[in-house]
Amino acid sequence: MQQTAALAALMQRLAYDFNHPALLDEALTHRSVGAQNNERLEFLGDSVLNFVIADELFRKFPDINEGDLSRLRASLVNRDSLAEIARELELGACLRLGSGELKSGGYRRSSIIADAVESLLGAVYCDSGFDACRALVLRLFSHKLNTIPDLDSLKDAKTRLQELLQSRRYPRPEYTVLGVSGKPHAQHFEVECRMLEPAVVTVAEGRSRRKAEQLAAEAAFELVTQQFQK
Amino acid sequence: MQQTAALAALMQRLAYDFNHPALLDEALTHRSVGAQNNERLEFLGDSVLNFVIADELFRKFPDINEGDLSRLRASLVNRDSLAEIARELELGACLRLGSGELKSGGYRRSSIIADAVESLLGAVYCDSGFDACRALVLRLFSHKLNTIPDLDSLKDAKTRLQELLQSRRYPRPEYTVLGVSGKPHAQHFEVECRMLEPAVVTVAEGRSRRKAEQLAAEAAFELVTQQFQK
Repeated sequence: MQQTAALAALMQRLAYDFNHPALLDEALTHRSVGAQNNERLEFLGDSVLNFVIADELFRKFPDINEGDLSRLRASLVNRDSLAEIARELELGACLRLGSGELKSGGYRRSSIIADAVESLLGAVYCDSGFDACRALVLRLFSHKLNTIPDLDSLKDAKTRLQELLQSRRYPRPEYTVLGVSGKPHAQHFEVECRMLEPAVVTVAEGRSRRKAEQLAAEAAFELVTQQFQK
Repeated sequence: MQQTAALAALMQRLAYDFNHPALLDEALTHRSVGAQNNERLEFLGDSVLNFVIADELFRKFPDINEGDLSRLRASLVNRDSLAEIARELELGACLRLGSGELKSGGYRRSSIIADAVESLLGAVYCDSGFDACRALVLRLFSHKLNTIPDLDSLKDAKTRLQELLQSRRYPRPEYTVLGVSGKPHAQHFEVECRMLEPAVVTVAEGRSRRKAEQLAAEAAFELVTQQFQK
């Protein structure tokens, strides 16, 4: 009964009625329930979602380059933003979970509810085709599409550092792994970021090479900015 | 003149006429030419291509799981497969390249011609909409879609090793970075793959941690298979 009330509320929030309710059931069934689950629909929903948002950004921003389009899309479509949409829809209350996930509060877990938004979009696409699915994506993302973040804030530290150096025609920094330590599954990478001009060296540690490089670049960005202001 | 003949031949091979030839020009302009280039269309084409192939695989294989759908798509849509399609279309002859890329034979380079296939699909989508673009994708990929590779052959070495161990209820192998050497931009990772049962240890080197892990897993897979056959 509660399930039915929650489902009815979800349908109202989606403003969409399924022609084939079995698709909705599938979209709301987590893999902890069994082999018949929402992962196939998630695969489909993920790809239609990424296409619809790519298309929308392409039209909306005719003057920005491919790198910025990619970064904008990644800022709009990610686990956190999808989980936010799931919470607005109160999707968690409608999920079918295995008993373990149910006990541990899986219906609140970001990864699970974010994936279910993609499954739901895959189900709508199967149920009514591309146009209906596109309309739903644009409705769910309308607020996010109308409050696009500042492009510079989306760049990672390595990119920002490189662009800062390039703007003064300085060479790129070099990144070197100085060492790896720790047990398997908990290894630490120590990475150096070094440039000749301005002469700056930073060292940072992280759980992956990439993470350590970003941290070293972040520290270097601060130092280089200070030098340029002198 | 030659350009025009090559273009006419491309249009014939595509069996598609552009309503807006400016879109075709844009799709064929490499970034080495200048700021007005095909990268935005590539971003759009990449996402429509991935969606169309995802949708097609979803329908074609109703019984395979999400992991296999992803692997199948990655085996169909990648730089090599797109470059192959570009060569069938003789797309390279129609590309506009900057003088540096032209001299170094950029019109033959896989990455450049593969990207241009995506740009071309983005251009067709802009020119005629989704249905026309989808029809072209399915035509270009028809041979590949009809000769889908064996699913097991698509799994990487780490996955195959893990599944082999799991099938006998043995624990997962552990991967450890033993060392990193070499100059920046040419670093070598040495990785160990170790399991308790059956007791197997392999060591491999590679230009990235991931690559070294895959090579170590491959060697371990061979040894474990031999042990199981005894």
